[in-house]
Amino acid sequence: MAARSGAGAGPEDLSQSLLDMLRFSGPATKPVLTARVGAGRTLVTQKINELIDVGLVSEDRVGRSTGGRIPREVRFRSEAAAVLGIEVGSSSLDVAITDLAGRPAVTHHEPWDITKGPEATLDRLEQIVNQLRDEPQAPTVPLVAVGAGLAAPVEFTTGRPISPPYMPGWDGYPVRDRLSDRFGVEAWVDNDVSAMALAELRAGNAQDASDFLFVKLGLGIGAGLVSGGVLHRGADGCAGDIAHIPVATKSPALCRCGRRGCLAAHASGAALTREARRLADSGESPYLAALAAEGTTLEAAHVTAASHAGDPAATELLAQTGRFIGTALGTYVSFFNPSLVAIGGAVSQAGDILLAAIRQAVYEFSLPLATRHLQITPSDLGDTAGVVGAACTALDAMLRANRLDWWAEQPLKN
Amino acid sequence: MAARSGAGAGPEDLSQSLLDMLRFSGPATKPVLTARVGAGRTLVTQKINELIDVGLVSEDRVGRSTGGRIPREVRFRSEAAAVLGIEVGSSSLDVAITDLAGRPAVTHHEPWDITKGPEATLDRLEQIVNQLRDEPQAPTVPLVAVGAGLAAPVEFTTGRPISPPYMPGWDGYPVRDRLSDRFGVEAWVDNDVSAMALAELRAGNAQDASDFLFVKLGLGIGAGLVSGGVLHRGADGCAGDIAHIPVATKSPALCRCGRRGCLAAHASGAALTREARRLADSGESPYLAALAAEGTTLEAAHVTAASHAGDPAATELLAQTGRFIGTALGTYVSFFNPSLVAIGGAVSQAGDILLAAIRQAVYEFSLPLATRHLQITPSDLGDTAGVVGAACTALDAMLRANRLDWWAEQPLKN
Repeated sequence: MAARSGAGAGPEDLSQSLLDMLRFSGPATKPVLTARVGAGRTLVTQKINELIDVGLVSEDRVGRSTGGRIPREVRFRSEAAAVLGIEVGSSSLDVAITDLAGRPAVTHHEPWDITKGPEATLDRLEQIVNQLRDEPQAPTVPLVAVGAGLAAPVEFTTGRPISPPYMPGWDGYPVRDRLSDRFGVEAWVDNDVSAMALAELRAGNAQDASDFLFVKLGLGIGAGLVSGGVLHRGADGCAGDIAHIPVATKSPALCRCGRRGCLAAHASGAALTREARRLADSGESPYLAALAAEGTTLEAAHVTAASHAGDPAATELLAQTGRFIGTALGTYVSFFNPSLVAIGGAVSQAGDILLAAIRQAVYEFSLPLATRHLQITPSDLGDTAGVVGAACTALDAMLRANRLDWWAEQPLKN
Repeated sequence: MAARSGAGAGPEDLSQSLLDMLRFSGPATKPVLTARVGAGRTLVTQKINELIDVGLVSEDRVGRSTGGRIPREVRFRSEAAAVLGIEVGSSSLDVAITDLAGRPAVTHHEPWDITKGPEATLDRLEQIVNQLRDEPQAPTVPLVAVGAGLAAPVEFTTGRPISPPYMPGWDGYPVRDRLSDRFGVEAWVDNDVSAMALAELRAGNAQDASDFLFVKLGLGIGAGLVSGGVLHRGADGCAGDIAHIPVATKSPALCRCGRRGCLAAHASGAALTREARRLADSGESPYLAALAAEGTTLEAAHVTAASHAGDPAATELLAQTGRFIGTALGTYVSFFNPSLVAIGGAVSQAGDILLAAIRQAVYEFSLPLATRHLQITPSDLGDTAGVVGAACTALDAMLRANRLDWWAEQPLKN
């Protein structure tokens, strides 16, 4: 095997290099692009013209002439086409239609019982997409790709979930092929947290980060890894499993994996829900007890509400949850030495108490050198991380796989 | 920032691509190279001729003509020049002179007290290199680079150790610049375990692995990470710290970091030495007690000898050590999902009992999906991993940084 940056990078990849630069570093003049790409001016101009011809790039005037030539910049036409971003969660569906930069134009969220299986889920997704396309803000440009993130380990090359713990009936189902069949364009499928890490890299806080972790705190807990600006999926596509690191030694809770003391058993959304109900039953949290007495089915979000209302037991529960998460992350920060840990997922919206406890424990439990420049921040993509990540997964793959002759056949310029 | 495989890959990098292919995939005919590199035949031939002119590549006849043209293959001339590989350990120095593939021609090992500081260490290294160059097997071709691996976190760009726990007096010392001054060629410096991981990738068991871990079991414990065929050094160059993950909860030992139950406090060479002495003092190990009674200063290696001699307490200690290591590695295997874990370092030579215990615990404590294709093997580079890795660190950097005009000035062809 060869290193990524070397083999195969002949002149045919020059279009690719130019496209990457325009996508990731923004518009630039031809002389600047020529200098950056390290090739001859004539060849660069020829490649830019080819990209302009297929409609992926344009050359626009910027500012006014000051007597000499009018300055012109080359830019990536992110508005030229549309992409579908789909997140299939353990209990919900999210869909967005985005531009070629992964920016959502229209979005849809709904609860969904994933155990209905893949065929019923795809039927529902098709209905949602048809609704979205009819919305006034929906892009009218051609749809060129579909990306999907699944709450499961995914074999990226085939786009099939492998032994998914939260998606019974989906094991080995050819999601990639079926999405492609349904929507008539090429599809790519990845693990949802890996897709979220990619969203953070392409459109979020991590655009200047080379090595970082995205941590999703939802019903479960997972991480996405980026090494040297490239998503690290691992040998089987299941990198980022942080759910079963042991964190609790005193009266550890039983995890669904069969062991005791796992992070997921103590700090996931599922664990918060369990603890919320316990605090209500025992009366330790008057706020949660009152909610339960009203007939409310307690969930993780109620702990945050209780804490905001000044309930000490709920606040202590969030701090303890943050401490478990931070203790675990300290181990991974020492191992991976990221410059950024971005925290996303529904539970991350619990706010400052949780985040402060995470930060404190990470700094306590990791190597001082590894935290010299470490930032721990909430993801600023919020609820859209999943669909933006799914769209970016498709975009990255297709803008690198498809040759110009394919793009030339798309009606991108009307 | 841009992804590694894209930006900057213009025609000027074609020489680079060809060189990488010849280095990592071996000799090939011109038509094969032309097809692989995806460029025109004329251009590829021109670039190959430039590489032949500077002496990095040659075109040789292979086999006999069968009536038509004599088949010819292009190959990388690894014999064209020499590289110094240096490993500065916490208690020893290792030096090798290698070819341009990192293969050692001559090697030297000696115990060394690293607390003598950088100047005394460099003086001694210079003496060792002068001795090595006089050996009959030493290469007579020009020395073109120096690589060094340090038992410390290293800022790779500057080649300075940062807050090294085992190398007092070395903090911030410009090792890279000083090595370059001493030996009159460019130098590169990295953490020793990262260098060993690179050795495994370039010359060891991991040549076909894209995502893998190298684990060094020595006086301390550390890991080197490779993601997508590229060394992952982390944001501060200190990725791979696995020493302080908690592994022991019952009567945990105090670690030098101030906490209890860390992997390093239970499964390093230092911990084995401590336990060997305890087993001798308590009489639990008759073999070790007898050695101690003879006045032997017990060390980690004696535990292996005792186990091989059938001593049950020593065998149990090795199994327990392997279990601690495997429990920790299980957490990292789930997180990183490597296809290979290569185990090196002096303690790894304890053999089958240790390795079997490591394997068993990894399989028990990691996600089943992450171990579907996982191999856990001893490094086959043995004692040379450090110096080969140091040489490869320099080779990778210089063969990618230096332009052909620099090579043209070297007398590689005489």
